Amino acid sequence: MDDTPAVRTLAEVLPTHEPPSPTTPFGRAARDFLYGEVWSRPGLSRRDRRWVTLTCVAAADSPQPIEDHVHAALASGDIGLEAMLEFVLHFAVYCGWPKASHVEGAIARQWDRLHRERGEQTPSWPQLSDDTLGPAAWDERFARGVEEFIDVNLTPAPPPNSPYRHAGILNFVFGHVWQRPGLTRRERRIVTVASVALDDSPVPLQTHVRAALHSGDLTKEEMDEIVLQFAAYYGFAKGEALADAVETAWASKAD
Amino acid sequence: MDDTPAVRTLAEVLPTHEPPSPTTPFGRAARDFLYGEVWSRPGLSRRDRRWVTLTCVAAADSPQPIEDHVHAALASGDIGLEAMLEFVLHFAVYCGWPKASHVEGAIARQWDRLHRERGEQTPSWPQLSDDTLGPAAWDERFARGVEEFIDVNLTPAPPPNSPYRHAGILNFVFGHVWQRPGLTRRERRIVTVASVALDDSPVPLQTHVRAALHSGDLTKEEMDEIVLQFAAYYGFAKGEALADAVETAWASKAD
Amino acid sequence: MDDTPAVRTLAEVLPTHEPPSPTTPFGRAARDFLYGEVWSRPGLSRRDRRWVTLTCVAAADSPQPIEDHVHAALASGDIGLEAMLEFVLHFAVYCGWPKASHVEGAIARQWDRLHRERGEQTPSWPQLSDDTLGPAAWDERFARGVEEFIDVNLTPAPPPNSPYRHAGILNFVFGHVWQRPGLTRRERRIVTVASVALDDSPVPLQTHVRAALHSGDLTKEEMDEIVLQFAAYYGFAKGEALADAVETAWASKAD
Repeated sequence: MDDTPAVRTLAEVLPTHEPPSPTTPFGRAARDFLYGEVWSRPGLSRRDRRWVTLTCVAAADSPQPIEDHVHAALASGDIGLEAMLEFVLHFAVYCGWPKASHVEGAIARQWDRLHRERGEQTPSWPQLSDDTLGPAAWDERFARGVEEFIDVNLTPAPPPNSPYRHAGILNFVFGHVWQRPGLTRRERRIVTVASVALDDSPVPLQTHVRAALHSGDLTKEEMDEIVLQFAAYYGFAKGEALADAVETAWASKAD
Repeated sequence: MDDTPAVRTLAEVLPTHEPPSPTTPFGRAARDFLYGEVWSRPGLSRRDRRWVTLTCVAAADSPQPIEDHVHAALASGDIGLEAMLEFVLHFAVYCGWPKASHVEGAIARQWDRLHRERGEQTPSWPQLSDDTLGPAAWDERFARGVEEFIDVNLTPAPPPNSPYRHAGILNFVFGHVWQRPGLTRRERRIVTVASVALDDSPVPLQTHVRAALHSGDLTKEEMDEIVLQFAAYYGFAKGEALADAVETAWASKAD
Repeated sequence: MDDTPAVRTLAEVLPTHEPPSPTTPFGRAARDFLYGEVWSRPGLSRRDRRWVTLTCVAAADSPQPIEDHVHAALASGDIGLEAMLEFVLHFAVYCGWPKASHVEGAIARQWDRLHRERGEQTPSWPQLSDDTLGPAAWDERFARGVEEFIDVNLTPAPPPNSPYRHAGILNFVFGHVWQRPGLTRRERRIVTVASVALDDSPVPLQTHVRAALHSGDLTKEEMDEIVLQFAAYYGFAKGEALADAVETAWASKAD
């Protein structure tokens, strides 16, 4: 096997993945562009690049990349089990329950595989206490949901005048999920930006990109790297829409 | 296993599905938000919620959720085989033939499993006669297609000046598929609304949501529940776009 | 503005598109990887690369890339209006009616823009006669549909025992759409391969990739270039699944 920077990066990104010498244009582009260029760049941490990539592969339903990248995130030590399981729930909110269910299955398989490869017993997943569910009093939950919505989105919260907004957005998405520990708000923003980019619903795309930059939780340099990482895994078509949203949001920050 | 309202709803929605005690944030949220909240809500029937869910899981390509929800729809008795197979064709139009092909495979597998579980021989699917294909005279078919287009969309039909409009829209989609028995127009509207929401092509999204509400085939309360069911199964980003389309269409109905 | 091979290729691919000097990692990767590498490669014609790209951008719902690539295909002379409108119908079958509706709107806008830019009156689209719809006798249509299915897919046709298979597959998709003139079978295969790759339903992906290679309509070299073009526009995650399908199909051809 070659020992080039591209191949060394590939080995760090996907440990225990034995890459054959690429014999196709796609294989060579994966080695040279994806690993030799995109993953090797400074400006965004390896862990943050994994958040973008995990979101993309899980949404893309590509069976083997999902297994490979979940395994690699855990095996490399870049992402622990707890954070990975929090990712599943956040991802479920933005890309829907079925895809999240599938990626949680992949986590179970790869967690088990990881321990078998190490000759270890597979630890069971931690029992969650009901403390993790947040306030059970709905008025308290709702009030915190409104605050969290404003904090995250930097816009006023919508009135609770539909099931989607009341039970969904204010009580569940912002009243609970965004407030959970185990993933930082900055990490939740990364997963959300990748999700709205692949979903390409125009208003959420603009809102979340703008909030990520205007809050200062992500710098322009980091966001530019997120755009490239996303474009590599979900394509330059949707990547262009994300790139445009970033430039628009950055220009409005200067004002 | 717990016996709570959430768990009882889950058991009705997914019979013969043995849910493990949720040990992950995602599993917890599935039990408490998805089943304890969304599926338990009044305002939209269980069968109608299944139409939204089936559309979402089939479009999401998540293998196990597709099998689970197809099985559950048939096993619960909420949806019969004939209606399920009509769904496949309608879904094929709105989400593409490959995904429809996959869900039809899931129906075959789950129909077989259902009967094996009951110790019964699996009834074969009926051969369909050409009587079900509608008029064989193009001018008659086209004229009915134009009428159906106007009836469903509440807008004038396009001129037949492209293959898509001529052979596709007027002769096949409205000239045949929307007129088939086995699914009511109201049910076809539910599948279509979920489809245009996940496809997020802006004009079809506005057109079909508006027509669903302005025709009176779906009430505002039902549509609001569809938005929440959809957001849970295909994500809150696209859910937001659907929610906005519903509000816009409802506001214009008052005018 | 630079005058490099990448920039010259970009100017051929997207004429009248004024590219700003790339100031972001994404912009530079678009110039260097997308145009400097992928579009510049031999092994697949410019027109065939456009079919892959049009399928990807239309499915991706990215508003500006759709307008840009539709305009460029027409303005460059690489694809004429008739073929573009046939593409819409074929694309509707494989990626669903709403996205096809949107791309047909883009074609109307860009056809008009093209003629305004040239100071010409915009020719209207031709009214299509019912002669273009094929046989109106259902038994004849069905028989031809079965033949076409076998010819295209290199597998037996399914029995007509569901609406999807009877009214859909045998009477419409293969009974009509695949037989229409205006796009060659080879071109229909290119659009279909890109569609099943982005849809990622496993069996249609394998079937259509295998049939494209085993029929000889697409060579291994051309297919390898399609994989790379697709991966660039729809991402390396789904690209990997397509690459695997190609290798599997090619290996089985040797047997």
